[in-house]
Amino acid sequence: MAVIVQKYGGTSVESIEKIKKIAEQIAKRKKSGNDIVVVVSAMGKTTDNLVRMAYDITIDPHKRELDVLMATGEQVSMSLLSIALNSLGIEAVSYAGHQLGIKTEGSHTKSRITDINDEKIHKDHRNGKVVIVAGFQGVNEDNEITTLGRGGSDTTAVALAAKLQAQCEIYTDVDGIYTIDPRLYPRARKLDFISYDEMLEMASSGAGVMHPRSIELAEKYKVPVLLALNTGDIPGSLIKEIDNTMENPAITGLAVNNDQAIITLNGIPHDIRVIADIFQSIANKDINIDMISQTFPVNRLVSISFTLPKADLYHALKVLDTFKDKIFTFSYDAFEDITKLSVVGLGMNTQSGVAAKVFNLLADNDIPVSIVTTSEIKISYIINPNDQRKAIEAIAKEFDL
Amino acid sequence: MAVIVQKYGGTSVESIEKIKKIAEQIAKRKKSGNDIVVVVSAMGKTTDNLVRMAYDITIDPHKRELDVLMATGEQVSMSLLSIALNSLGIEAVSYAGHQLGIKTEGSHTKSRITDINDEKIHKDHRNGKVVIVAGFQGVNEDNEITTLGRGGSDTTAVALAAKLQAQCEIYTDVDGIYTIDPRLYPRARKLDFISYDEMLEMASSGAGVMHPRSIELAEKYKVPVLLALNTGDIPGSLIKEIDNTMENPAITGLAVNNDQAIITLNGIPHDIRVIADIFQSIANKDINIDMISQTFPVNRLVSISFTLPKADLYHALKVLDTFKDKIFTFSYDAFEDITKLSVVGLGMNTQSGVAAKVFNLLADNDIPVSIVTTSEIKISYIINPNDQRKAIEAIAKEFDL
Repeated sequence: MAVIVQKYGGTSVESIEKIKKIAEQIAKRKKSGNDIVVVVSAMGKTTDNLVRMAYDITIDPHKRELDVLMATGEQVSMSLLSIALNSLGIEAVSYAGHQLGIKTEGSHTKSRITDINDEKIHKDHRNGKVVIVAGFQGVNEDNEITTLGRGGSDTTAVALAAKLQAQCEIYTDVDGIYTIDPRLYPRARKLDFISYDEMLEMASSGAGVMHPRSIELAEKYKVPVLLALNTGDIPGSLIKEIDNTMENPAITGLAVNNDQAIITLNGIPHDIRVIADIFQSIANKDINIDMISQTFPVNRLVSISFTLPKADLYHALKVLDTFKDKIFTFSYDAFEDITKLSVVGLGMNTQSGVAAKVFNLLADNDIPVSIVTTSEIKISYIINPNDQRKAIEAIAKEFDL
Repeated sequence: MAVIVQKYGGTSVESIEKIKKIAEQIAKRKKSGNDIVVVVSAMGKTTDNLVRMAYDITIDPHKRELDVLMATGEQVSMSLLSIALNSLGIEAVSYAGHQLGIKTEGSHTKSRITDINDEKIHKDHRNGKVVIVAGFQGVNEDNEITTLGRGGSDTTAVALAAKLQAQCEIYTDVDGIYTIDPRLYPRARKLDFISYDEMLEMASSGAGVMHPRSIELAEKYKVPVLLALNTGDIPGSLIKEIDNTMENPAITGLAVNNDQAIITLNGIPHDIRVIADIFQSIANKDINIDMISQTFPVNRLVSISFTLPKADLYHALKVLDTFKDKIFTFSYDAFEDITKLSVVGLGMNTQSGVAAKVFNLLADNDIPVSIVTTSEIKISYIINPNDQRKAIEAIAKEFDL
């Protein structure tokens, strides 16, 4: 019997009504002859509320206890869903991370799954039961409750699917993956398929829906992931391995990210140790730098521009201030008003000139570009937010998105 | 170093402000040189809200899942209290029932503690840590999460104190045990000491504060239990073993219970098997019958009156209806408007005539009594609620309560 791992996010279980509705869908699927594992997130804004209570006590809550606190969120939703399924006559049993044996390593609030004990799942499936598992949490070597950090529930679902060699279905409040965010470009097309690599680049470039770490895990274990609307009645998008030697469109999708800021460092000595020192100091604050562009040295000094999440801008500037004393020539500028456009497509591997084509397109539309970076299947451009709409229209039209 | 087990109820941890206040008290106590175990209930009305969600799904929620759901309540309060203590520089660690190893047996939602693994507590105390334990919950032989039913958190605290040979301190929103509920009789005296037996009779007779099962457990293991206000700065009442051969006042306290109803069965054949059958059928519905009085047989028929919780009246009458077909002569009456007065005192053991004295007192004040039952240290009277105030005044005055 085919095993299916389904995951329902916080908005899908935010009320008793929604939990009952989802229980009915699962019951129908179960009756059609599948062995089912359901991964649930905490109800609605539960996790945020729990975390807020902890931070109302102190600005630095004890990490072990924060994990114990947050883990209650999924324990509530999983038991309610199990109660709903049992009330429909479908035998179901729920497990918190520690009850099932979702083993993790790493520090509290950002642990990683190392293995999953699947004994109970197989036994319950033999007994005809639906297994419900708390997402986002596990247990470490010391038997302490841990949580997985951002994207945790998706990661739980993918890890379970990998362990059980099952298909993974992520149900959410959008009905699939689009060439462009439909809120920004209503004529965007829904993709039936997308490769792991493309999805990863899309997700890393700001196209929400799934967290990059869960996509990486899916790719590593070749788990096909269906992303679909939580009503279960609309075909979604399947993330899977796609042979990139085949004919693929040059561009599969366009990700738009308005959450980035840009910092430009001026008067940096052209010395790799100095530059490394600056970036290491920023990395030490857990700040993720994205696009980097460096000018040609003039008088042995260079300028470096890089993008980073807006939320981290303040902390990054605090770090940079410490270098003003050390480097006589150093100064910086920062801007929050930028848009990052990323065009993603496996076809870039085989078709050359995509970057130039987009460049010309932007030039033809009088849209200045401040930084460009490229990877194997992605090209990112920083533009002025005022030009965003024009740029999306032009690219969508040219590449039939 | 003396070990102290403290228990804080739902109202004591109902808000972040209150949790912070309690953390400060515990910190002070810790610094004065005690090894401390703190048992917490769920915040405010959390458990009620969780249970309501389950019953919003179905009238008969799966019991295993209901336990998993309810157990999250104390997990939230314990981790928040631990976060608060750690933020004050007091090392603390919290454990849910399954984490500590509070072993239980019996069915879900009403399990009993069989043993507690105290290894972690001793280790943490050696390392100078305050140990925080979730009340009301444990884990059964199959490693399933269980809950203890009514009075569960008090029971957890007393069981821990028994295991650790510690004093038990129950902090709540009243400042001790009074001769009479001060809301009914403002001039009531606070008792410095009360015996387990008296406290048990008081609690069983409707004087809230502690659940009878936790008092029974304290008596069994001779655990002294201090009951005090959760601010910790007012002396409370100590429940302990009191030698009942010593001179004790005839009456220590007066419990008033307005939550009982009375049923009178008429036309019952004077046959012990018939009577046993009726009471067994009621007991099968988990309904606790309290006072029973039976008339002398007339024409081989008897009348039987008994009291029971008002909340169970409807279910009891449903059971009794089934006997109307079986017993031709049978009929019943039910009244909800009754007051049960219980006078309790170890002194009754050595002083005779207490029942008669109270009877005369009530007669002198024109207060009719419908049922009387007596135990070794308690006499209960059913009176009309309209006479309640007059009866309390008279008894309090006569016995100096």
